[in-house]
Amino acid sequence: MEIAWIGTGIMGAPMARRLIRAGHRLRVFNRTPEKARALVNDGAVLASDAASAANDARTIFIMVPDTADVEAVIGKIQPSLTRGQLVVDMSTVAPEFERRTAEQLAQLGVDYLDAPVSGGETGAIEGTLTIMVGGDEAAFNRARPLLELLGKRITHMGASGAGQTTKLANQIAVALTLEAAAEALLFASKGGLDPGRVLEAIGAGAASSWQLNNLGPKIIAKDYRPGFFVKLIRKDLRLVTEAANQHGIALPGLNLMTSMFNATAALGHDLDGTQALAEALLKLATVE
Amino acid sequence: MEIAWIGTGIMGAPMARRLIRAGHRLRVFNRTPEKARALVNDGAVLASDAASAANDARTIFIMVPDTADVEAVIGKIQPSLTRGQLVVDMSTVAPEFERRTAEQLAQLGVDYLDAPVSGGETGAIEGTLTIMVGGDEAAFNRARPLLELLGKRITHMGASGAGQTTKLANQIAVALTLEAAAEALLFASKGGLDPGRVLEAIGAGAASSWQLNNLGPKIIAKDYRPGFFVKLIRKDLRLVTEAANQHGIALPGLNLMTSMFNATAALGHDLDGTQALAEALLKLATVE
Repeated sequence: MEIAWIGTGIMGAPMARRLIRAGHRLRVFNRTPEKARALVNDGAVLASDAASAANDARTIFIMVPDTADVEAVIGKIQPSLTRGQLVVDMSTVAPEFERRTAEQLAQLGVDYLDAPVSGGETGAIEGTLTIMVGGDEAAFNRARPLLELLGKRITHMGASGAGQTTKLANQIAVALTLEAAAEALLFASKGGLDPGRVLEAIGAGAASSWQLNNLGPKIIAKDYRPGFFVKLIRKDLRLVTEAANQHGIALPGLNLMTSMFNATAALGHDLDGTQALAEALLKLATVE
Repeated sequence: MEIAWIGTGIMGAPMARRLIRAGHRLRVFNRTPEKARALVNDGAVLASDAASAANDARTIFIMVPDTADVEAVIGKIQPSLTRGQLVVDMSTVAPEFERRTAEQLAQLGVDYLDAPVSGGETGAIEGTLTIMVGGDEAAFNRARPLLELLGKRITHMGASGAGQTTKLANQIAVALTLEAAAEALLFASKGGLDPGRVLEAIGAGAASSWQLNNLGPKIIAKDYRPGFFVKLIRKDLRLVTEAANQHGIALPGLNLMTSMFNATAALGHDLDGTQALAEALLKLATVE
């Protein structure tokens, strides 16, 4: 089989689908098999476990939630990995884990890239993800044609782990920029303005951001359907905090956002989109 | 005289210059006259005080730092204001003050708009400012042709004060989005990445913002020359805090940014550009 795709959730499924539609043959596996079944209709072969999905595949993609999940997948596929295979982990996990895994697989002659993405479900569907890659340049060049089917801005950031470090930097910016949008819109509403009009007025200037322009309208509509789960940004910010501690930095905005997203989860929004932060802010910041 | 322009600082001077270059006749006044003199070379007439600048002008623009400064200008020009004149305050000041002033001038038959801007010195020079206007619709329509020479996105936000409330919402977003950029870049640098490359990788996705893309390169170059003074964003955040208290909201990110910009000022950067926040963050957040 040409490609194995392990992890077909909210991000993995539309990404795998783009490869299938570009003419690639895929074997797919997901821990909850129902989520992989729709891809079978698109032409994918459903594997019964991760190891049999990966077996003989030239390129093995992994897109699962957390470090422990990637670790479990690696544990299952490693016994059958053979020289010349390429594993591309597109999950967002600890940079340190990726460095260790790349070293470990290098001993088997297997290439390993960390290639986490940004851009959410919409980016996954439309193939406009930002992809940040760490690992050997030769392996990067090998993966590139497939990555180009998934994303628009694909950058080789450096050695193994560098993709994840970039992604975590990205998540710091995502979290605080969302807070910026949510606080600005709450202030505007409480100040008697039409928040939609505020969005029009400020959405192209110095306050503008992807978060404001894309999630601002959802905040105003109180549409908390997930593009990107609160649960997952909480996981990402935990990874950032661990890495920041390793680098000897204490980021005040990161700490604030950890508290804010924990509060958002505590208020029942863990499986809502990150924009539900605005609902938590409304409940927590309004003192009258 | 057609137009009076009071306040020709870092923002006011290039804005006034755009009106002159479009063929309008301007009388200018600045508390520190040296700053107005360059405009005389462009064809403006220099007035000896605010009252004589405003005298008989059809439209009087004000662009000064703070509420007390606008109050002082209004105090000086009010005795000679006559029915039919239009005063456009483009400073960023308290919404409540604008409402009071508009009422007061309405009794003289003088129109008053609050029309604060966003976009910094570059926006002022290039005429690409975002302009947020509060006040009567008729007065807005009267001012519009002149405002169109100064900005690209010009929005009538509602009654008097609504322009300032919008601007303050904008400043909340500006401040927190800058923190987002600064923390992301610090994390990336401490994580061993080339921050310029990180900017390329994440500058078009979910983390993207005007602050990241415009001030990120300056942060990386440690170029703290002012586009927008730390001193002025501190003033703006004070106005936000006052208004937020009036609306009964307590914004955690706003509070953080008040502390962060106070720290930036305390470290000697009050007359640097807002991006000097990154320098304060580096000094305050690095624990090893």
